Amino acid sequence: MSSNITFHHHKISKADREKLKNQKAVLFWLTGLSGSGKSTIANRLEEKLFNLGKHTYILDGDNIRFGLNSDLGFSEKDREENIRRIGEVAKLFVDAGIIVITAFISPFRKDRERVRKLFPNGEFVEIFVDTPLEICKKRDPKGLYQKVERGEIHNFTGIDSPYEKPENPEIYIDTTKMDIEEATNIIIRYYINRYSGVDR
Amino acid sequence: MSSNITFHHHKISKADREKLKNQKAVLFWLTGLSGSGKSTIANRLEEKLFNLGKHTYILDGDNIRFGLNSDLGFSEKDREENIRRIGEVAKLFVDAGIIVITAFISPFRKDRERVRKLFPNGEFVEIFVDTPLEICKKRDPKGLYQKVERGEIHNFTGIDSPYEKPENPEIYIDTTKMDIEEATNIIIRYYINRYSGVDR
Repeated sequence: MSSNITFHHHKISKADREKLKNQKAVLFWLTGLSGSGKSTIANRLEEKLFNLGKHTYILDGDNIRFGLNSDLGFSEKDREENIRRIGEVAKLFVDAGIIVITAFISPFRKDRERVRKLFPNGEFVEIFVDTPLEICKKRDPKGLYQKVERGEIHNFTGIDSPYEKPENPEIYIDTTKMDIEEATNIIIRYYINRYSGVDR
Repeated sequence: MSSNITFHHHKISKADREKLKNQKAVLFWLTGLSGSGKSTIANRLEEKLFNLGKHTYILDGDNIRFGLNSDLGFSEKDREENIRRIGEVAKLFVDAGIIVITAFISPFRKDRERVRKLFPNGEFVEIFVDTPLEICKKRDPKGLYQKVERGEIHNFTGIDSPYEKPENPEIYIDTTKMDIEEATNIIIRYYINRYSGVDR
């Protein structure tokens, strides 16, 4: 908490950490319906970045919902707080020089915009994983749509709670027109084109 | 949120990330009174680790209180939640392969023990920065002890709120017997002895 400035030599900065890791840190924010393919894309994207020697980290339901946000439920207020905290944690990771990939439905525009505002221009990359509801329902990887149908879950995005599509996402992934390889290649190319010349 | 296992190739693991960074990830948890020298030690420690090519990140009041935990006050419940969240975020960073250094008073034993339990043995390194209250008061780097004296702050650790000393910290720093260089060298040696042979 304190800071005895007298003893400080040189505070290691984000730029120092990026240099050590030889990369530009950004946040890839995946948004889309449950079952749209966010986690699949996140994992394959991370694998490709890893193979390029990039330092990455995925924030998703698996490591957030049962840890940091285990105190939150699914009320409107809690869902808003869920996204707020994820944004703040992502900011810390980007500050640490890491390429962060988040995979959350994040249905509300205002919540996503609030996260965007935490970052300087160009560091928040919104990726809309657009998959028709009918396909998501068919996949239903976690059996959640079935639970909704049985009346066991309420306020479910796309069913009885809205999904507000991004209006100007940095990257648009139409999963009806491309497979996982193509989708992740688009993101990799986006990263390389923008930041690899600058590999600092 | 979802996981279309079909498409998964290989989930990048903590071990993969440690290997990429050529280091073992741990959490150095500094605890001690306000003004004890935690931030000074954290910053100098980070500088030394950085010079060894290690990937580090400091969590402290500066980047936590105004971001992730900006919704928390200083009530007993909020202070407990403050430390809980810091522990959970530190866990994510360690999982990302980073050497994390935290600098928070963290006065209560049960809160620190709760964080310890989040980690496998050996990954949570408690460092007690032991500085007599009188010296902390004299330093008073943030003018907080003065504010307490003027009655502007209450429930201040060491004054009208207890500081529960660690009983078995992994590292004990007696700041009356050593300077910042010696203190940080002890921590560096601890790290190298334990983890550098294993540099994975």
